[in-house]
Amino acid sequence: MAGNGVFAEIYDGEAEVYKYYAEGEWRKSSSAKSVSIINPTTRKTHFKVQACTQEEVNKVMDAAKVAQKAWARTPLWKRAELLHKAAAILKDHKAPIAHCLVKEIAKPAKDAVTEVVRSGDLVSYTAEEGVRILGEGKLLVSDSFPGNERSKYCLSSKIPLGVVLAIPPFNYPVNLAVSKIAPALIAGNALVLKPPTQGAVAALHMIHCFHLAGFPKGLISCVTGKGSEIGDFLTMHPGVNCISFTGGDTGIAISKKAGMIPLQMELGGKDACIVLEDADLDLVAANIVKGGFSYSGQRCTAVKVVLIMDSVADEVVEKVKSKMGKLTVGPPEDDCDITPVVTESSANFIEGLVMDAKEKGATFCQEYRREGNLIWPLLLDHVRPDMRIAWEEPFGPVLPIIRIHSVEEGIHHCNASNFGLQGCVFTSDINKAIMISDAMETGTVQINSAPARGPDHFPFQGLKDSGIGSQGITNSINMMVKVKSTVINLPAPSYTMG
Amino acid sequence: MAGNGVFAEIYDGEAEVYKYYAEGEWRKSSSAKSVSIINPTTRKTHFKVQACTQEEVNKVMDAAKVAQKAWARTPLWKRAELLHKAAAILKDHKAPIAHCLVKEIAKPAKDAVTEVVRSGDLVSYTAEEGVRILGEGKLLVSDSFPGNERSKYCLSSKIPLGVVLAIPPFNYPVNLAVSKIAPALIAGNALVLKPPTQGAVAALHMIHCFHLAGFPKGLISCVTGKGSEIGDFLTMHPGVNCISFTGGDTGIAISKKAGMIPLQMELGGKDACIVLEDADLDLVAANIVKGGFSYSGQRCTAVKVVLIMDSVADEVVEKVKSKMGKLTVGPPEDDCDITPVVTESSANFIEGLVMDAKEKGATFCQEYRREGNLIWPLLLDHVRPDMRIAWEEPFGPVLPIIRIHSVEEGIHHCNASNFGLQGCVFTSDINKAIMISDAMETGTVQINSAPARGPDHFPFQGLKDSGIGSQGITNSINMMVKVKSTVINLPAPSYTMG
Amino acid sequence: MAGNGVFAEIYDGEAEVYKYYAEGEWRKSSSAKSVSIINPTTRKTHFKVQACTQEEVNKVMDAAKVAQKAWARTPLWKRAELLHKAAAILKDHKAPIAHCLVKEIAKPAKDAVTEVVRSGDLVSYTAEEGVRILGEGKLLVSDSFPGNERSKYCLSSKIPLGVVLAIPPFNYPVNLAVSKIAPALIAGNALVLKPPTQGAVAALHMIHCFHLAGFPKGLISCVTGKGSEIGDFLTMHPGVNCISFTGGDTGIAISKKAGMIPLQMELGGKDACIVLEDADLDLVAANIVKGGFSYSGQRCTAVKVVLIMDSVADEVVEKVKSKMGKLTVGPPEDDCDITPVVTESSANFIEGLVMDAKEKGATFCQEYRREGNLIWPLLLDHVRPDMRIAWEEPFGPVLPIIRIHSVEEGIHHCNASNFGLQGCVFTSDINKAIMISDAMETGTVQINSAPARGPDHFPFQGLKDSGIGSQGITNSINMMVKVKSTVINLPAPSYTMG
Amino acid sequence: MAGNGVFAEIYDGEAEVYKYYAEGEWRKSSSAKSVSIINPTTRKTHFKVQACTQEEVNKVMDAAKVAQKAWARTPLWKRAELLHKAAAILKDHKAPIAHCLVKEIAKPAKDAVTEVVRSGDLVSYTAEEGVRILGEGKLLVSDSFPGNERSKYCLSSKIPLGVVLAIPPFNYPVNLAVSKIAPALIAGNALVLKPPTQGAVAALHMIHCFHLAGFPKGLISCVTGKGSEIGDFLTMHPGVNCISFTGGDTGIAISKKAGMIPLQMELGGKDACIVLEDADLDLVAANIVKGGFSYSGQRCTAVKVVLIMDSVADEVVEKVKSKMGKLTVGPPEDDCDITPVVTESSANFIEGLVMDAKEKGATFCQEYRREGNLIWPLLLDHVRPDMRIAWEEPFGPVLPIIRIHSVEEGIHHCNASNFGLQGCVFTSDINKAIMISDAMETGTVQINSAPARGPDHFPFQGLKDSGIGSQGITNSINMMVKVKSTVINLPAPSYTMG
Repeated sequence: MAGNGVFAEIYDGEAEVYKYYAEGEWRKSSSAKSVSIINPTTRKTHFKVQACTQEEVNKVMDAAKVAQKAWARTPLWKRAELLHKAAAILKDHKAPIAHCLVKEIAKPAKDAVTEVVRSGDLVSYTAEEGVRILGEGKLLVSDSFPGNERSKYCLSSKIPLGVVLAIPPFNYPVNLAVSKIAPALIAGNALVLKPPTQGAVAALHMIHCFHLAGFPKGLISCVTGKGSEIGDFLTMHPGVNCISFTGGDTGIAISKKAGMIPLQMELGGKDACIVLEDADLDLVAANIVKGGFSYSGQRCTAVKVVLIMDSVADEVVEKVKSKMGKLTVGPPEDDCDITPVVTESSANFIEGLVMDAKEKGATFCQEYRREGNLIWPLLLDHVRPDMRIAWEEPFGPVLPIIRIHSVEEGIHHCNASNFGLQGCVFTSDINKAIMISDAMETGTVQINSAPARGPDHFPFQGLKDSGIGSQGITNSINMMVKVKSTVINLPAPSYTMG
Repeated sequence: MAGNGVFAEIYDGEAEVYKYYAEGEWRKSSSAKSVSIINPTTRKTHFKVQACTQEEVNKVMDAAKVAQKAWARTPLWKRAELLHKAAAILKDHKAPIAHCLVKEIAKPAKDAVTEVVRSGDLVSYTAEEGVRILGEGKLLVSDSFPGNERSKYCLSSKIPLGVVLAIPPFNYPVNLAVSKIAPALIAGNALVLKPPTQGAVAALHMIHCFHLAGFPKGLISCVTGKGSEIGDFLTMHPGVNCISFTGGDTGIAISKKAGMIPLQMELGGKDACIVLEDADLDLVAANIVKGGFSYSGQRCTAVKVVLIMDSVADEVVEKVKSKMGKLTVGPPEDDCDITPVVTESSANFIEGLVMDAKEKGATFCQEYRREGNLIWPLLLDHVRPDMRIAWEEPFGPVLPIIRIHSVEEGIHHCNASNFGLQGCVFTSDINKAIMISDAMETGTVQINSAPARGPDHFPFQGLKDSGIGSQGITNSINMMVKVKSTVINLPAPSYTMG
Repeated sequence: MAGNGVFAEIYDGEAEVYKYYAEGEWRKSSSAKSVSIINPTTRKTHFKVQACTQEEVNKVMDAAKVAQKAWARTPLWKRAELLHKAAAILKDHKAPIAHCLVKEIAKPAKDAVTEVVRSGDLVSYTAEEGVRILGEGKLLVSDSFPGNERSKYCLSSKIPLGVVLAIPPFNYPVNLAVSKIAPALIAGNALVLKPPTQGAVAALHMIHCFHLAGFPKGLISCVTGKGSEIGDFLTMHPGVNCISFTGGDTGIAISKKAGMIPLQMELGGKDACIVLEDADLDLVAANIVKGGFSYSGQRCTAVKVVLIMDSVADEVVEKVKSKMGKLTVGPPEDDCDITPVVTESSANFIEGLVMDAKEKGATFCQEYRREGNLIWPLLLDHVRPDMRIAWEEPFGPVLPIIRIHSVEEGIHHCNASNFGLQGCVFTSDINKAIMISDAMETGTVQINSAPARGPDHFPFQGLKDSGIGSQGITNSINMMVKVKSTVINLPAPSYTMG
Repeated sequence: MAGNGVFAEIYDGEAEVYKYYAEGEWRKSSSAKSVSIINPTTRKTHFKVQACTQEEVNKVMDAAKVAQKAWARTPLWKRAELLHKAAAILKDHKAPIAHCLVKEIAKPAKDAVTEVVRSGDLVSYTAEEGVRILGEGKLLVSDSFPGNERSKYCLSSKIPLGVVLAIPPFNYPVNLAVSKIAPALIAGNALVLKPPTQGAVAALHMIHCFHLAGFPKGLISCVTGKGSEIGDFLTMHPGVNCISFTGGDTGIAISKKAGMIPLQMELGGKDACIVLEDADLDLVAANIVKGGFSYSGQRCTAVKVVLIMDSVADEVVEKVKSKMGKLTVGPPEDDCDITPVVTESSANFIEGLVMDAKEKGATFCQEYRREGNLIWPLLLDHVRPDMRIAWEEPFGPVLPIIRIHSVEEGIHHCNASNFGLQGCVFTSDINKAIMISDAMETGTVQINSAPARGPDHFPFQGLKDSGIGSQGITNSINMMVKVKSTVINLPAPSYTMG
């Protein structure tokens, strides 16, 4: 279980507070303060973590800078070897980490285990990918460009950025942390993790797996604390050379203060699901339910609005309702499909969107029901563009349907959004599939499946307010390197013979 | 017109024989013999070319070897500049070259012009592509592989092969020549062209455009003659470092004698057209007629067998017949759709296939008609696998239809062929389209269009007996280079900082 | 000459003010105000340009957004064709544009012509490069990642960002403008140019060449005006999807305000030249003079500090002094090597650095001399780290020499700088060359040659405060695109056969 | 030990003959004949293997074809998983396999172990490399090429060739077998191994590790036997889709009979070592001894001729002689540096070269000494181009030195060879290093180190008679795939928006 066994050292049993990780050690903050983590199900404090100080952040940054220089001189295969080791340890300890996810973010028990296992796979895949990306540069010659002889050989290679600050969100606090940590490390960077409050303890356990794998002191750190104290301090810290952030609007604020460093940001979406008349309607219904209600809709790539051709809308709505009737609702420990949303303010926000839609005349396919943070799954039919839920992301088990009368209307609604993360279109027609995908202004369009971040080596990025910089394993590594060139200038032209 | 104006020097007016091109000059062969080119329409000798000797081939090879060494030391941009110049000259002189195509291979007049213009575009595109391919190598470091520190930097780049022998076929004697010449040259190779007999004079004119562009002496040569005298002599010549061949069965023989050099061969196909019930049948009919009868079916990528679901077969056959009724038949000078096939033996071979099918019970959708080399377009319905035309390529305006009762049957027929050049499938269903394409064992599968070699930068290659090595502009350049590496061994590990 | 002939329409002869370019037209600003451009040589107003308003900027942005959508649907080869046309027109009119450069920025006459010609080459090369970068995406399959069958095919391609804002500096107002314009356009973006005040008229002429080439209305715009009025307004404009900036410190400010868009910034450097004992000292001296004093040192990649092993310092200093003695000093019209620096404040800043060094004991190898903006070339020996000139970039014909006693001392000085643009090392030793290059923390290290931006297809970028984002033709195009993916989800696994 | 424990089933204890591997089973040949393997040290039969029949080869080929089709439909990550398993099993059983190497090919005991371990690493690295190469194709659009709109999307991917025939040589019967097996398998091919006689038993053990890993029946086979019976039969077998061969002249014969399939051949070399006056002479001497005498010179990439500037030749010869004096000579079991060469005929051939050189006046730096197959290391100074040893490869511990008087003389000798595998140059001068490497016509040039095949991910290939096709992990995988394209033809142009 959490904080026990190999994880004993990450826990201050006396104060009942989890430690933070700096300079290769688990430490208590000099602030003597802690941050409480409320269990979304019980709405009571379940864990406590250190409230780190700015001074402690400074030390972490200094240590990271020093450690990075040595790490950048470590052979690629050795970096990979350590990551493989961390991945194996992570998978070996999936149970206690999953336990934290259940308690901190009310993730259904099985999904919590899956998140940890998938994270291990991601770390290993990233290690091997990075060996290849970092191990291969380009050789350019000067005589490609008009007027030049071949007397200059340019050797360009990819080198680390320095210190990467990783800020994952609450909904995948392990997976969306390692998807930043692993590329940063294999590329030769140091890594400072600021976990989300909800999910911080799972993240600390995960970090301990990297500690156990034997990474050098100071290369990886994890600081917990209050956003007001160390949030801006971290993101504006001159020691940071790259920010990889997943979350909400905060990202836009960060981007405006961060200065001249690469940003990799994923800030949510309003993924549309366009359904044409010739679609496989059972496939559609299954994907709407899975896409809209998995983890109670608390996913960036959840289906967040369904745009459906009026002629098939009734049939699809019936199929979806029928499938929704089979969703179990309750605590994550029981592996229910729908579990409490992460915070009370989240639940209130969702309720606000629902009430607005109600007032403006949306049709409720089920009765609206809420107990504490637990909201029963709800389908809203006949939603119109003047309702907030047509545009805002609830991040809860609440899904609006807008009936459309042409493909163009669907594309237009999708493209009118500030967001541009993913979208999907259901049709059996090859021409429509490609041409609608081309027309949708989102980072990814899924044809005949709900939006999805994975498989993890696919590109993943949002357009417009959904973010900047590309993710996916390969792209993340490429985000965390820069190019350096050495030009050998010869005294006379030289052409390679053979 | 041919042999006049700027082309005067390529013609020996006295002997009425076109010269061959060696060491930067237009020459008469010491053999004092010539090869006659029969006009397929008139069936009379129209042009004569030199019958070169083995001794002359040897001189050409020696000159090529010398010229290549200097050419490989010419800046990439200068190579490209010369190719751009040749492309412009070629386009400027499209009329006389097209004229040769009309007379030598009975290509419809407009298509003949198109071939020359498209060839100019291809040369220019190849030049720019080659600048990039040849101008960029790889930088590899040693510490990717377990057990190594970063003390070895490997610089690998693409370098020329040496002398490339190009042997294009009669049906595109200009375009399929430049598609070998341009990649060979931009990559730094010398080039020896052996044009087809039918099409040789067009090829000589085209080569003169390169001459006028100012390529160095000996770098490009064009030898004409009898296969029995210089055919094997060329393909087995120790001075040849690469053979790029397009044609028929001869290719297999060449591959068995050629020795240890890269081969780029395209030897024809039996491209199947699979038609499903949900296809756009007008689109199908249009593509069958275009794919099956353009240039009288004398194209590697012609539709050579139609595999059509029985339930829609009658309708498609009707539509095809109706469109075939509009094809004009006659001499190429009149821009007829169907013109005489290239030789009398070709016509006889086609007739053999037709008669075999007749005997075995195929349904003739039109009456079979032939005058000299001119064969009227013919659709054969209800063809069965025991007929030769189900498997052999007629290279004429004669197209078999096999009715199928399942997709699997169609795929099976396609994959049972010795050939594997292209294929096509007509369906509106995205899943079927992709999965059938995956299942077809051909180099390319076209979804909802007839097979086609172009656009010229797409990959183009045959599997099985259809050939070896990939074509298309990018792939052709890559076929005509080899990799050379320089490894810098440092006395101690060195990692790039930044 | 400027403003005449084909350029007549860009000039408001009555008001003697150059117009700005919006929506495909040359316009006068509604502000009725102008900005004066002072000739550095005469220190008198030579040209005047429009002082555009924020309202005019808004219109330009709106038009750009509309034009971009249509442009993104233009075939790649057509985009390239227009760029080739613009390049040819630019080269045809090199004389009047070069004339502006002489008058606006005191660039020596011959160099001014070279800048224009090289710009034409760059545009053409970029066009062809872009055709390839934009024309090729990736096909990824799902079964690479553990646990997945091959049922997802991901098609990812590069698409335009939208509207690119280009802000070039005064020293190469044509070349550093087209190096932003050409990649933006070939990639399918619209482009808004804000030229530097000094150099604005040359830029307007250059833009007219693009106008004459026939680009669609609104796709390209050029607004001139006061930084205080439209500077921040432009860089913070919500319609801007990418900023490509070359210049000084302003860049850092821009990066902090710009929000969540890709930034390509090059902000200067303090390029070090490390000279080892085993170097070819004549080569060193030639490169120091060329690298330090070309265009009076007003180049980002000028040699800005020489770090030389003490044992060979005297000899090198002698050689450099001797070569400096041959530099001509005077007006750009006479093609002098050293011409007036761009503004009086520049000259004053340079003088400040010189005086600081003098006070702190630097050895002056020549007498310090200044007339107006004209500063005679000056070598300062025995400079020490406590002098400002050891760290700040003069952007003038004034070069400090620091004597070092070990390689490590040289590397340390180089890496202690805030800047990280380029650097160079002179040595004949292969091991030292590579290992010192690896150790220097700059974007590029030149071995045995002065720093240089070109050839233009090489990567070019600064580390640390020298900038963000990579340049060079290929990298610039890649900076101005984003990735979009279409995922085809099949109902069952499908593997490609052949 | 060999043939025991987990390896018991590969041995027919009764007949004392090792079995061959077909259709997932260890079998005795119906020929009831065997081939004896002579221990080079004792010159007595040490092992016996099956003499397979042509009928048995046919069965193996049939099974391979069937197994390959299913294997090509296996997810990439599963293929990799099996290879990782085989690699681990191989490393676990390094001792018995190394034992075979000692007995069969007299490889020094420690080197034998190293070969097995390095082979395991190679298999794992190849698995991960292949996941990436096979998992990524290209997406090309039609509008790059003049005249085309974007209505064609070409999806090209890499697919298996079919059945790969692997023929490794005696000197690395395990490592040069897995370097063919692993790329073949990860790419989706079936694999038939024909091991060398000397080394066959080690190879059978290695194959058993793949068997234990659980690869599907028939996918991997290993047939042993007499070249006269099954040699040509295998290489000309119509079921073979690719031959990967390492060895000697036989390769040239194979290439002439093999027909239209990709060939990957490495046929030896005469690697030159050019030593300039400014080289680090201790480094030179160490590399000559290591490069020339490791495994008694029986390496493709052994230094086979030293070309040394006369002025430093005496000094280098002294240093080399001194180091050679420390080489131990004797049986491989004692880990001697110099062990018996592989066969008596080899020893006789080497002696022939030595005697020829003696007669023609070469200086012997040591006395020539031979006992059975054991030849004492010998340096021959003052070798001249008229001696056979100047051009032929001894594949034994016998190294010629040619004194040169200019760099050009050295390059000329290197380039006059029929071979073009590797070469090396020793100089501290960066310009000379690059320019000499450029001038040497070999696949790889090592600067300041002896030739070497590894690290195994570097390109490795020979030019001229040294072979065709590139090796190294990445290149080998690319040799064992072909490209297939699917072109989606849309009814109207479609451009991707975002």
